[in-house]
Amino acid sequence: MKTNPGRFFEDYVLGETIVHAVPRTVSGGERALYHALYPARGALYSSDAFARACGLPQSPVDDLIAFHTVFGKTVPDISLNAIANLGYAEGRWLLPVYPGDTLRSESTVIGLKENSNGKSGVVYVRTRGLNQHGEAVLDYVRWVMVRKARATPAPEPVVPSLQSVVSPEALVVPAGLDFSTYDFALAGERHRFGDYVVGERIDHVDGVTVEEAEHMLATRLWQNTAKVHFDATFREDGKRLIYGGHVISLARALSFNGLANAQVMVALNAGAHANPCFAGDTVKAWSEVLDKAPTAAPGVGALRLRLVAVKQSAAPFALRDEAGRYLPEVLLDLDYWALVPL
Amino acid sequence: MKTNPGRFFEDYVLGETIVHAVPRTVSGGERALYHALYPARGALYSSDAFARACGLPQSPVDDLIAFHTVFGKTVPDISLNAIANLGYAEGRWLLPVYPGDTLRSESTVIGLKENSNGKSGVVYVRTRGLNQHGEAVLDYVRWVMVRKARATPAPEPVVPSLQSVVSPEALVVPAGLDFSTYDFALAGERHRFGDYVVGERIDHVDGVTVEEAEHMLATRLWQNTAKVHFDATFREDGKRLIYGGHVISLARALSFNGLANAQVMVALNAGAHANPCFAGDTVKAWSEVLDKAPTAAPGVGALRLRLVAVKQSAAPFALRDEAGRYLPEVLLDLDYWALVPL
Amino acid sequence: MKTNPGRFFEDYVLGETIVHAVPRTVSGGERALYHALYPARGALYSSDAFARACGLPQSPVDDLIAFHTVFGKTVPDISLNAIANLGYAEGRWLLPVYPGDTLRSESTVIGLKENSNGKSGVVYVRTRGLNQHGEAVLDYVRWVMVRKARATPAPEPVVPSLQSVVSPEALVVPAGLDFSTYDFALAGERHRFGDYVVGERIDHVDGVTVEEAEHMLATRLWQNTAKVHFDATFREDGKRLIYGGHVISLARALSFNGLANAQVMVALNAGAHANPCFAGDTVKAWSEVLDKAPTAAPGVGALRLRLVAVKQSAAPFALRDEAGRYLPEVLLDLDYWALVPL
Repeated sequence: MKTNPGRFFEDYVLGETIVHAVPRTVSGGERALYHALYPARGALYSSDAFARACGLPQSPVDDLIAFHTVFGKTVPDISLNAIANLGYAEGRWLLPVYPGDTLRSESTVIGLKENSNGKSGVVYVRTRGLNQHGEAVLDYVRWVMVRKARATPAPEPVVPSLQSVVSPEALVVPAGLDFSTYDFALAGERHRFGDYVVGERIDHVDGVTVEEAEHMLATRLWQNTAKVHFDATFREDGKRLIYGGHVISLARALSFNGLANAQVMVALNAGAHANPCFAGDTVKAWSEVLDKAPTAAPGVGALRLRLVAVKQSAAPFALRDEAGRYLPEVLLDLDYWALVPL
Repeated sequence: MKTNPGRFFEDYVLGETIVHAVPRTVSGGERALYHALYPARGALYSSDAFARACGLPQSPVDDLIAFHTVFGKTVPDISLNAIANLGYAEGRWLLPVYPGDTLRSESTVIGLKENSNGKSGVVYVRTRGLNQHGEAVLDYVRWVMVRKARATPAPEPVVPSLQSVVSPEALVVPAGLDFSTYDFALAGERHRFGDYVVGERIDHVDGVTVEEAEHMLATRLWQNTAKVHFDATFREDGKRLIYGGHVISLARALSFNGLANAQVMVALNAGAHANPCFAGDTVKAWSEVLDKAPTAAPGVGALRLRLVAVKQSAAPFALRDEAGRYLPEVLLDLDYWALVPL
Repeated sequence: MKTNPGRFFEDYVLGETIVHAVPRTVSGGERALYHALYPARGALYSSDAFARACGLPQSPVDDLIAFHTVFGKTVPDISLNAIANLGYAEGRWLLPVYPGDTLRSESTVIGLKENSNGKSGVVYVRTRGLNQHGEAVLDYVRWVMVRKARATPAPEPVVPSLQSVVSPEALVVPAGLDFSTYDFALAGERHRFGDYVVGERIDHVDGVTVEEAEHMLATRLWQNTAKVHFDATFREDGKRLIYGGHVISLARALSFNGLANAQVMVALNAGAHANPCFAGDTVKAWSEVLDKAPTAAPGVGALRLRLVAVKQSAAPFALRDEAGRYLPEVLLDLDYWALVPL
């Protein structure tokens, strides 16, 4: 057979590195599309002049363009036969990505654990995004539950030890970044590092009703090939499941309203796609300040933020029920570090 | 509260200049998206080679990309709590915008008049779009009706004196523009300045049925944040109101068929969004030649045009009823100057 | 009348060359949109680094971007009053198109044959796409059935003699193309020239459900002005007909899964839009290897492929019924040559 059936649980080998296909050069086109698809307004990612005033050579593409592009390449090898996307950890953005850069991805299998039913197992991979110079721009761990196709013996279970949070010392601030003369008026809000308090929660107010055409345009742009996002005949209910990354980008863009200055994503500590999102849903978002830390860069602090995407029917700051389960209106629970001016 | 509640009528101060947030670098991406979103076919805005043959260094982005980008930045400060967008006047494009340019906006409050009900008032602003060199690329007056949030005393009413039409002497022709060797075959029509007669009306024939995904992609691209365009749960009828600028761009692009050579928008004399537009409407357009004027540039004349967007059910050249009110099928009545070859 | 009524059968003159309007500069924006609109994953068209490793100066835009752009320009002059798009022949891509290139089109009338009913006739044109240097980038023959508007005498019937297949010797391999160090891992599949057998058929497995917004964005991007694609009030059934080229691009992109290395389209031998496609259809694709040929370029072979697009309800490898008519589920039957590594 010439077509790619995807890998099954028994096809993964501990320690193996998989080179993912289809490298991708990004341009101003990807940036414009990102702004058309999401209400993204971070000034550093919108304006070359603003980026230069912050010490960068020009405006990078959104950190989530880098993430989705790197992630999309892994889909044919990692999650084509996945039953569930279970988690993320130890994600770090290592270098800004600029128009003209070419991204590719590779993943190393760092853990394998067959389920007791013998029909599936959990695969842990560490994925690296690399640019045209072979430099890592992004690094994260993801684990997925994957079907077995054949009755093979279970491998020795190996579950990697993962940090629940990227430590502030491990955050990589883009070289040259300097927020000491940050222009708060042009950025859109006056709130700085000192204005945010651990435990503070922010309702981002705005909402976006999602269309089929939009999430498919986005998901294709990242060259993500999972059938379930594109083919209405694939699921029994005739619905196209929206790529979880689309919800991440929507929520992150909505969080501008209250977190306009939390411009740079530097680490992804954890993430759960709590419930599926479908076209017609109106997505809203709220955030919680989980931690704060200084950085060595001039004028730059770091906020650890929980970003929660919910459907319009959710109660304020909805998250979990009394049993600790995500409420049905919750779509996403993301834990990340962002850089913010002092 | 960390989120932006927008300004209310009592928050505006006469003479104050508001710096709008989120500067924006435009690229070939915005241009490609503009061509995907609208049936735009002006050769000067489509081809570097054509633009060079007309004396420009390369093809600028569409004049309405500049307008929407500058306008979008004003929304969070000017019209987030607006009840109605009442009018435009004295709009002039002052410099072409090229890929790589960065646009930002600022507005000066030039008039304030509280309504007799004490619950709202009219705010007049003069908005300037500036490029990365601080040069003005666009300048226009807009007035909106804005809610009051608090029972404050009414300010001294000041209503600016505005010209009903930009005078031909005030039109700014892009430096170097030369239509003396204009290629009518490549531009798509043979009609020149002398072929248009004041009072002449042109039915542009073509129609476009509008989709939710399209107007949201466009409105986000201009970083316009008005909730009513994106959130189907915001209005009681569950409809998303289409940004008036989307209708302007649709109608202007449709007007290619009959006005292919009226390529360069140089002034916005007036504009009314006569009725709301919703997804599913099929938009058509007609134009009327209101005036003609020479310019000092070689081979370049100016046409003053009325551009009317209507729904598909409109009678030919529909505009107003006997009482002078816009007919319900009329979406837009725009009065502008365009440059055309002699 | 100032608007373009299009040409009718009696308006075409044998031997006449028509210069089509609205030249177009393509950029990274068109490329990004192409990837958003279609699940295109050819590495050569996705990555500058991959293209350089194959001997090209950078990644060209997709060959179908060139085709659609050139084709779109012909619509106002060739097919505005067309009843049917009857066929393609002798199509060849002659030069890669890079971001920054400006394309224009011209067509020569090479055949005319009035139908016996005296109400329409078939027009044959040879269309050339030219870049800003006046070099031909694409050349193809198309024939369409066009309405007559006036009762004129039938012209002397001239039907051009057309080759049913572009001969392998006539294929133009892009200068410098070298697949001798081709990276199969980065390209996404291991199959090379020798792995494909004449007569082999490949089911490309994936499907895409089409949305109105998507096909209209695409069709506008190519500045194709045919009303039937955009105006839901144009047809009696209220449906918008999807541009046949949208189906070509969808099917070609879907064919990545099994033909990832058949990267470069070099000839269009024939093509039939067997049945109309509408929003809501889920498009799938299959291919058949029709022929194989060597080329003079290092490491480069050519595959002649049949690409068939079908609706989701089609039986495997559906094509024709016993009477030789296309089955109703078949949307497209395309015959082309592609370059593949040896």
